[in-house]
Amino acid sequence: MIFYFAPRTVAVAAHITLEEVGADYETRVLDFSADEQRGDAYLSVNPKGRVPALVTDKGVITETPAILLYLAQRYPDANLAPWKDAFQLAKLQEFNAYLCATVHVAHAHRVRGERWADEETALKAMQQKVPQSMRTCFQLIADDFFQGPWVMGQSYSLADPYLFTISNWLEGDGVAIRDFPNIADHNRRMRERTAVAKILPIHGI
Amino acid sequence: MIFYFAPRTVAVAAHITLEEVGADYETRVLDFSADEQRGDAYLSVNPKGRVPALVTDKGVITETPAILLYLAQRYPDANLAPWKDAFQLAKLQEFNAYLCATVHVAHAHRVRGERWADEETALKAMQQKVPQSMRTCFQLIADDFFQGPWVMGQSYSLADPYLFTISNWLEGDGVAIRDFPNIADHNRRMRERTAVAKILPIHGI
Repeated sequence: MIFYFAPRTVAVAAHITLEEVGADYETRVLDFSADEQRGDAYLSVNPKGRVPALVTDKGVITETPAILLYLAQRYPDANLAPWKDAFQLAKLQEFNAYLCATVHVAHAHRVRGERWADEETALKAMQQKVPQSMRTCFQLIADDFFQGPWVMGQSYSLADPYLFTISNWLEGDGVAIRDFPNIADHNRRMRERTAVAKILPIHGI
Repeated sequence: MIFYFAPRTVAVAAHITLEEVGADYETRVLDFSADEQRGDAYLSVNPKGRVPALVTDKGVITETPAILLYLAQRYPDANLAPWKDAFQLAKLQEFNAYLCATVHVAHAHRVRGERWADEETALKAMQQKVPQSMRTCFQLIADDFFQGPWVMGQSYSLADPYLFTISNWLEGDGVAIRDFPNIADHNRRMRERTAVAKILPIHGI
Protein backbone atom coordinates (compact mmCIF):
# COMPACT_ATOMS: atom_id res chain seq x y z
CA MET A 1 0.00 0.00 0.00
CA ILE A 2 1.05 3.61 -0.47
CA PHE A 3 0.12 6.14 2.20
CA TYR A 4 -0.07 9.82 1.21
CA PHE A 5 0.09 12.25 4.10
CA ALA A 6 1.32 15.59 5.35
CA PRO A 7 2.95 15.91 8.77
CA ARG A 8 0.82 16.86 11.78
CA THR A 9 -2.44 16.70 9.85
CA VAL A 10 -5.33 14.34 10.59
CA ALA A 11 -3.31 11.74 8.65
CA VAL A 12 -1.53 11.00 11.94
CA ALA A 13 -4.49 8.78 12.94
CA ALA A 14 -4.22 6.52 9.90
CA HIS A 15 -0.42 6.55 10.12
CA ILE A 16 -0.54 5.23 13.69
CA THR A 17 -3.07 2.60 12.66
CA LEU A 18 -0.94 1.39 9.75
CA GLU A 19 1.77 0.75 12.34
CA GLU A 20 -0.62 -0.80 14.87
CA VAL A 21 -1.81 -3.42 12.38
CA GLY A 22 1.70 -4.12 11.07
CA ALA A 23 0.78 -3.17 7.50
CA ASP A 24 3.30 -3.37 4.67
CA TYR A 25 3.24 0.16 3.24
CA GLU A 26 5.31 2.96 1.73
CA THR A 27 4.82 6.66 2.44
CA ARG A 28 4.59 9.71 0.22
CA VAL A 29 4.85 13.06 1.99
CA LEU A 30 2.99 16.03 0.51
CA ASP A 31 4.41 19.51 0.96
CA PHE A 32 1.43 21.65 1.95
CA SER A 33 3.59 24.81 1.93
CA ALA A 34 4.09 24.21 -1.81
CA ASP A 35 0.36 23.39 -2.22
CA GLU A 36 1.31 19.92 -3.47
CA GLN A 37 -2.08 18.59 -2.33
CA ARG A 38 -3.71 20.69 -5.06
CA GLY A 39 -1.25 19.74 -7.80
CA ASP A 40 -2.32 17.58 -10.75
CA ALA A 41 -0.20 14.62 -9.63
CA TYR A 42 -1.96 14.33 -6.29
CA LEU A 43 -5.41 15.26 -7.61
CA SER A 44 -5.18 12.15 -9.81
CA VAL A 45 -4.85 10.16 -6.56
CA ASN A 46 -7.42 12.13 -4.54
CA PRO A 47 -9.51 14.66 -6.48
CA LYS A 48 -10.52 16.27 -3.16
CA GLY A 49 -6.94 17.49 -2.67
CA ARG A 50 -6.91 16.39 0.94
CA VAL A 51 -4.92 13.96 3.04
CA PRO A 52 -4.71 11.16 3.94
CA ALA A 53 -5.13 8.83 0.97
CA LEU A 54 -4.34 5.14 1.02
CA VAL A 55 -3.60 3.39 -2.26
CA THR A 56 -4.53 -0.29 -2.01
CA ASP A 57 -4.33 -3.10 -4.57
CA LYS A 58 -8.01 -2.42 -5.41
CA GLY A 59 -7.96 1.38 -5.50
CA VAL A 60 -7.63 4.54 -3.43
CA ILE A 61 -9.37 5.09 -0.08
CA THR A 62 -9.76 8.55 1.45
CA GLU A 63 -11.46 9.97 4.57
CA THR A 64 -9.99 9.03 7.95
CA PRO A 65 -12.99 7.06 9.31
CA ALA A 66 -13.07 4.94 6.14
CA ILE A 67 -9.31 4.26 6.11
CA LEU A 68 -9.37 3.32 9.79
CA LEU A 69 -12.30 0.92 9.36
CA TYR A 70 -10.64 -0.62 6.31
CA LEU A 71 -7.43 -1.31 8.24
CA ALA A 72 -9.39 -2.87 11.11
CA GLN A 73 -11.21 -5.16 8.69
CA ARG A 74 -8.15 -6.13 6.66
CA TYR A 75 -6.11 -6.85 9.79
CA PRO A 76 -8.58 -8.54 12.16
CA ASP A 77 -5.86 -9.85 14.47
CA ALA A 78 -5.18 -6.28 15.63
CA ASN A 79 -8.70 -6.27 17.11
CA LEU A 80 -9.37 -2.57 16.49
CA ALA A 81 -13.15 -2.68 15.96
CA PRO A 82 -15.96 -4.72 17.58
CA TRP A 83 -17.25 -6.21 14.30
CA LYS A 84 -19.59 -8.75 15.85
CA ASP A 85 -21.49 -6.32 18.08
CA ALA A 86 -23.60 -4.00 15.92
CA PHE A 87 -24.27 -1.60 18.78
CA GLN A 88 -20.63 -1.30 19.87
CA LEU A 89 -19.48 -0.89 16.28
CA ALA A 90 -22.08 1.87 15.88
CA LYS A 91 -20.78 3.61 19.03
CA LEU A 92 -17.25 3.48 17.63
CA GLN A 93 -18.42 4.91 14.30
CA GLU A 94 -20.48 7.52 16.15
CA PHE A 95 -17.38 8.71 17.99
CA ASN A 96 -15.27 8.85 14.84
CA ALA A 97 -18.05 10.64 12.92
CA TYR A 98 -18.19 13.27 15.66
CA LEU A 99 -14.42 13.82 15.39
CA CYS A 100 -14.63 13.99 11.60
CA ALA A 101 -17.72 16.18 11.14
CA THR A 102 -17.73 18.39 14.24
CA VAL A 103 -14.40 18.49 16.10
CA HIS A 104 -12.06 18.51 13.11
CA VAL A 105 -14.36 21.04 11.43
CA ALA A 106 -14.30 23.31 14.51
CA HIS A 107 -10.49 23.23 14.44
CA ALA A 108 -10.35 23.87 10.70
CA HIS A 109 -11.97 27.27 11.18
CA ARG A 110 -8.66 28.50 12.60
CA VAL A 111 -6.44 27.36 9.75
CA ARG A 112 -8.68 26.64 6.75
CA GLY A 113 -11.38 29.30 7.05
CA GLU A 114 -11.09 30.11 3.34
CA ARG A 115 -13.15 26.99 2.70
CA TRP A 116 -16.22 28.79 4.06
CA ALA A 117 -15.69 32.53 3.57
CA ASP A 118 -13.52 34.94 1.61
CA GLU A 119 -13.50 38.18 3.62
CA GLU A 120 -10.58 38.73 5.95
CA THR A 121 -12.89 39.95 8.74
CA ALA A 122 -14.92 36.74 8.50
CA LEU A 123 -11.79 34.60 8.70
CA LYS A 124 -10.77 36.51 11.83
CA ALA A 125 -14.24 36.06 13.36
CA MET A 126 -14.01 32.32 12.73
CA GLN A 127 -10.57 32.12 14.32
CA GLN A 128 -11.80 33.93 17.39
CA LYS A 129 -14.49 31.35 18.04
CA VAL A 130 -12.23 28.28 17.75
CA PRO A 131 -11.14 28.16 21.42
CA GLN A 132 -14.78 28.20 22.50
CA SER A 133 -16.02 25.61 20.01
CA MET A 134 -13.07 23.25 20.60
CA ARG A 135 -13.56 23.54 24.37
CA THR A 136 -17.25 22.69 24.01
CA CYS A 137 -16.39 19.63 21.91
CA PHE A 138 -13.77 18.34 24.33
CA GLN A 139 -15.99 18.97 27.34
CA LEU A 140 -18.58 16.68 25.75
CA ILE A 141 -15.95 14.08 24.88
CA ALA A 142 -14.41 14.15 28.36
CA ASP A 143 -17.74 14.10 30.23
CA ASP A 144 -20.01 11.99 28.04
CA PHE A 145 -18.20 9.94 25.43
CA PHE A 146 -14.73 8.97 26.72
CA GLN A 147 -15.12 5.77 28.72
CA GLY A 148 -11.52 5.14 29.84
CA PRO A 149 -8.89 3.94 29.95
CA TRP A 150 -9.43 3.95 26.17
CA VAL A 151 -12.12 5.85 24.32
CA MET A 152 -14.43 2.85 24.06
CA GLY A 153 -13.51 1.40 27.46
CA GLN A 154 -11.16 -1.50 28.14
CA SER A 155 -10.28 -2.17 24.51
CA TYR A 156 -8.00 0.05 22.46
CA SER A 157 -9.80 0.79 19.18
CA LEU A 158 -9.80 2.96 16.05
CA ALA A 159 -11.18 5.82 18.15
CA ASP A 160 -7.94 6.16 20.12
CA PRO A 161 -5.45 7.25 17.45
CA TYR A 162 -8.12 9.56 16.04
CA LEU A 163 -8.79 11.27 19.38
CA PHE A 164 -5.04 11.45 20.05
CA THR A 165 -4.45 13.17 16.70
CA ILE A 166 -7.02 15.88 17.37
CA SER A 167 -6.17 16.32 21.06
CA ASN A 168 -2.68 17.33 19.91
CA TRP A 169 -4.28 20.36 18.21
CA LEU A 170 -5.85 21.71 21.40
CA GLU A 171 -3.00 23.93 22.60
CA GLY A 172 -2.67 25.55 19.17
CA ASP A 173 -6.42 26.12 19.22
CA GLY A 174 -6.17 28.00 22.52
CA VAL A 175 -7.41 25.24 24.82
CA ALA A 176 -5.26 23.75 27.60
CA ILE A 177 -5.39 19.95 27.39
CA ARG A 178 -4.77 19.77 31.16
CA ASP A 179 -8.28 21.15 31.65
CA PHE A 180 -9.46 17.68 30.58
CA PRO A 181 -7.47 15.29 32.81
CA ASN A 182 -8.79 12.08 31.21
CA ILE A 183 -7.92 13.35 27.74
CA ALA A 184 -4.47 14.54 28.85
CA ASP A 185 -3.84 11.13 30.44
CA HIS A 186 -5.01 9.39 27.25
CA ASN A 187 -2.65 11.54 25.18
CA ARG A 188 0.26 10.59 27.46
CA ARG A 189 -0.52 6.87 27.35
CA MET A 190 -0.90 6.95 23.57
CA ARG A 191 2.67 8.25 23.28
CA GLU A 192 3.91 5.16 25.12
CA ARG A 193 2.59 2.80 22.48
CA THR A 194 5.24 1.40 20.15
CA ALA A 195 3.30 2.29 16.99
CA VAL A 196 2.80 5.88 18.12
CA ALA A 197 6.37 6.42 19.32
CA LYS A 198 7.61 5.21 15.94
CA ILE A 199 5.71 7.71 13.81
CA LEU A 200 5.66 10.84 16.02
CA PRO A 201 9.18 11.97 15.03
CA ILE A 202 8.07 11.89 11.37
CA HIS A 203 5.33 14.38 12.27
CA GLY A 204 7.42 16.44 14.69
CA ILE A 205 4.83 15.97 17.46
CA MET B 1 -36.57 1.54 18.71
CA ILE B 2 -37.35 5.23 19.07
CA PHE B 3 -36.25 7.61 16.34
CA TYR B 4 -35.80 11.30 17.22
CA PHE B 5 -35.79 13.65 14.26
CA ALA B 6 -36.78 17.04 12.93
CA PRO B 7 -38.39 17.38 9.50
CA ARG B 8 -36.19 18.10 6.45
CA THR B 9 -32.94 17.75 8.41
CA VAL B 10 -30.23 15.19 7.74
CA ALA B 11 -32.42 12.78 9.74
CA VAL B 12 -34.26 12.07 6.47
CA ALA B 13 -31.46 9.64 5.52
CA ALA B 14 -31.89 7.48 8.63
CA HIS B 15 -35.69 7.77 8.40
CA ILE B 16 -35.65 6.35 4.87
CA THR B 17 -33.32 3.58 5.97
CA LEU B 18 -35.53 2.60 8.91
CA GLU B 19 -38.28 2.08 6.33
CA GLU B 20 -36.00 0.30 3.85
CA VAL B 21 -35.00 -2.34 6.41
CA GLY B 22 -38.55 -2.73 7.74
CA ALA B 23 -37.57 -1.77 11.29
CA ASP B 24 -40.09 -1.71 14.13
CA TYR B 25 -39.80 1.85 15.46
CA GLU B 26 -41.65 4.83 16.89
CA THR B 27 -40.90 8.45 16.07
CA ARG B 28 -40.45 11.54 18.22
CA VAL B 29 -40.47 14.86 16.35
CA LEU B 30 -38.40 17.72 17.76
CA ASP B 31 -39.57 21.28 17.20
CA PHE B 32 -36.46 23.18 16.17
CA SER B 33 -38.39 26.48 16.10
CA ALA B 34 -38.92 26.02 19.85
CA ASP B 35 -35.26 24.96 20.30
CA GLU B 36 -36.44 21.59 21.63
CA GLN B 37 -33.17 19.98 20.53
CA ARG B 38 -31.40 22.04 23.21
CA GLY B 39 -33.89 21.33 25.98
CA ASP B 40 -32.98 19.18 28.97
CA ALA B 41 -35.32 16.36 27.94
CA TYR B 42 -33.59 15.85 24.60
CA LEU B 43 -30.07 16.56 25.89
CA SER B 44 -30.51 13.54 28.18
CA VAL B 45 -31.00 11.49 24.99
CA ASN B 46 -28.29 13.22 22.92
CA PRO B 47 -26.02 15.65 24.80
CA LYS B 48 -24.90 17.10 21.45
CA GLY B 49 -28.38 18.55 20.91
CA ARG B 50 -28.51 17.38 17.31
CA VAL B 51 -30.66 15.02 15.28
CA PRO B 52 -31.07 12.23 14.46
CA ALA B 53 -30.81 9.96 17.50
CA LEU B 54 -31.88 6.32 17.56
CA VAL B 55 -32.73 4.72 20.89
CA THR B 56 -32.05 0.98 20.73
CA ASP B 57 -32.44 -1.73 23.37
CA LYS B 58 -28.73 -1.29 24.20
CA GLY B 59 -28.53 2.50 24.18
CA VAL B 60 -28.62 5.61 22.01
CA ILE B 61 -26.84 5.95 18.66
CA THR B 62 -26.22 9.34 17.04
CA GLU B 63 -24.43 10.56 13.87
CA THR B 64 -25.95 9.62 10.52
CA PRO B 65 -23.10 7.43 9.21
CA ALA B 66 -23.18 5.39 12.45
CA ILE B 67 -26.97 4.96 12.49
CA LEU B 68 -26.97 3.92 8.84
CA LEU B 69 -24.22 1.34 9.33
CA TYR B 70 -25.99 0.00 12.43
CA LEU B 71 -29.24 -0.51 10.50
CA ALA B 72 -27.40 -2.28 7.68
CA GLN B 73 -25.74 -4.63 10.16
CA ARG B 74 -28.87 -5.32 12.21
CA TYR B 75 -30.96 -5.99 9.10
CA PRO B 76 -28.61 -7.89 6.78
CA ASP B 77 -31.42 -9.08 4.51
CA ALA B 78 -31.84 -5.50 3.26
CA ASN B 79 -28.33 -5.78 1.76
CA LEU B 80 -27.41 -2.13 2.28
CA ALA B 81 -23.64 -2.48 2.84
CA PRO B 82 -20.99 -4.76 1.26
CA TRP B 83 -19.79 -6.24 4.57
CA LYS B 84 -17.64 -8.97 3.10
CA ASP B 85 -15.58 -6.75 0.82
CA ALA B 86 -13.31 -4.53 2.92
CA PHE B 87 -12.47 -2.26 -0.01
CA GLN B 88 -16.09 -1.74 -1.11
CA LEU B 89 -17.20 -1.15 2.47
CA ALA B 90 -14.41 1.43 2.80
CA LYS B 91 -15.59 3.18 -0.39
CA LEU B 92 -19.12 3.33 1.00
CA GLN B 93 -17.84 4.75 4.30
CA GLU B 94 -15.61 7.18 2.38
CA PHE B 95 -18.61 8.53 0.50
CA ASN B 96 -20.71 8.90 3.65
CA ALA B 97 -17.81 10.52 5.52
CA TYR B 98 -17.49 13.08 2.71
CA LEU B 99 -21.20 13.90 2.96
CA CYS B 100 -20.98 14.16 6.75
CA ALA B 101 -17.75 16.13 7.16
CA THR B 102 -17.59 18.24 3.99
CA VAL B 103 -20.90 18.53 2.14
CA HIS B 104 -23.25 18.79 5.13
CA VAL B 105 -20.77 21.20 6.73
CA ALA B 106 -20.66 23.38 3.60
CA HIS B 107 -24.48 23.57 3.66
CA ALA B 108 -24.56 24.32 7.39
CA HIS B 109 -22.71 27.59 6.82
CA ARG B 110 -25.92 29.01 5.37
CA VAL B 111 -28.23 28.11 8.22
CA ARG B 112 -26.04 27.32 11.25
CA GLY B 113 -23.16 29.76 10.90
CA GLU B 114 -23.39 30.68 14.58
CA ARG B 115 -21.55 27.44 15.30
CA TRP B 116 -18.38 28.99 13.90
CA ALA B 117 -18.64 32.77 14.28
CA ASP B 118 -20.64 35.37 16.19
CA GLU B 119 -20.43 38.55 14.09
CA GLU B 120 -23.32 39.24 11.74
CA THR B 121 -20.93 40.22 8.92
CA ALA B 122 -19.11 36.90 9.26
CA LEU B 123 -22.40 34.97 9.10
CA LYS B 124 -23.27 36.86 5.91
CA ALA B 125 -19.86 36.15 4.41
CA MET B 126 -20.35 32.44 5.13
CA GLN B 127 -23.78 32.44 3.53
CA GLN B 128 -22.43 34.10 0.43
CA LYS B 129 -19.92 31.31 -0.15
CA VAL B 130 -22.40 28.41 0.22
CA PRO B 131 -23.50 28.28 -3.45
CA GLN B 132 -19.85 28.03 -4.52
CA SER B 133 -18.80 25.43 -1.95
CA MET B 134 -21.90 23.26 -2.50
CA ARG B 135 -21.40 23.42 -6.27
CA THR B 136 -17.78 22.32 -5.88
CA CYS B 137 -18.85 19.38 -3.68
CA PHE B 138 -21.56 18.21 -6.09
CA GLN B 139 -19.29 18.61 -9.11
CA LEU B 140 -16.86 16.20 -7.45
CA ILE B 141 -19.67 13.81 -6.52
CA ALA B 142 -21.21 13.89 -10.01
CA ASP B 143 -17.89 13.57 -11.87
CA ASP B 144 -15.77 11.35 -9.63
CA PHE B 145 -17.73 9.48 -6.97
CA PHE B 146 -21.25 8.74 -8.23
CA GLN B 147 -21.09 5.48 -10.15
CA GLY B 148 -24.71 5.07 -11.25
CA PRO B 149 -27.44 4.05 -11.34
CA TRP B 150 -26.90 4.12 -7.56
CA VAL B 151 -24.08 5.88 -5.75
CA MET B 152 -21.99 2.73 -5.42
CA GLY B 153 -22.98 1.25 -8.78
CA GLN B 154 -25.54 -1.49 -9.39
CA SER B 155 -26.47 -1.99 -5.73
CA TYR B 156 -28.60 0.43 -3.75
CA SER B 157 -26.73 1.12 -0.47
CA LEU B 158 -26.57 3.38 2.59
CA ALA B 159 -25.00 6.07 0.42
CA ASP B 160 -28.21 6.57 -1.58
CA PRO B 161 -30.63 7.92 1.06
CA TYR B 162 -27.78 10.07 2.42
CA LEU B 163 -27.00 11.64 -0.97
CA PHE B 164 -30.73 12.06 -1.66
CA THR B 165 -31.19 13.91 1.65
CA ILE B 166 -28.45 16.40 0.92
CA SER B 167 -29.26 16.81 -2.78
CA ASN B 168 -32.68 18.10 -1.66
CA TRP B 169 -30.86 21.05 -0.04
CA LEU B 170 -29.20 22.20 -3.28
CA GLU B 171 -31.90 24.58 -4.53
CA GLY B 172 -32.09 26.31 -1.14
CA ASP B 173 -28.33 26.61 -1.20
CA GLY B 174 -28.45 28.43 -4.52
CA VAL B 175 -27.41 25.53 -6.76
CA ALA B 176 -29.65 24.11 -9.50
CA ILE B 177 -29.78 20.32 -9.21
CA ARG B 178 -30.43 20.11 -12.98
CA ASP B 179 -26.82 21.22 -13.48
CA PHE B 180 -25.89 17.71 -12.34
CA PRO B 181 -28.03 15.40 -14.50
CA ASN B 182 -26.95 12.15 -12.82
CA ILE B 183 -27.72 13.57 -9.37
CA ALA B 184 -31.10 14.95 -10.51
CA ASP B 185 -31.96 11.57 -12.02
CA HIS B 186 -30.92 9.82 -8.79
CA ASN B 187 -33.12 12.17 -6.77
CA ARG B 188 -36.08 11.40 -9.03
CA ARG B 189 -35.59 7.64 -8.84
CA MET B 190 -35.19 7.78 -5.04
CA ARG B 191 -38.66 9.33 -4.80
CA GLU B 192 -40.12 6.30 -6.57
CA ARG B 193 -38.96 3.90 -3.86
CA THR B 194 -41.70 2.76 -1.50
CA ALA B 195 -39.71 3.60 1.64
CA VAL B 196 -38.96 7.11 0.42
CA ALA B 197 -42.48 7.87 -0.81
CA LYS B 198 -43.80 6.86 2.60
CA ILE B 199 -41.72 9.28 4.68
CA LEU B 200 -41.46 12.31 2.37
CA PRO B 201 -44.88 13.73 3.34
CA ILE B 202 -43.78 13.67 7.01
CA HIS B 203 -40.87 15.92 6.03
CA GLY B 204 -42.81 18.05 3.58
CA ILE B 205 -40.29 17.35 0.84
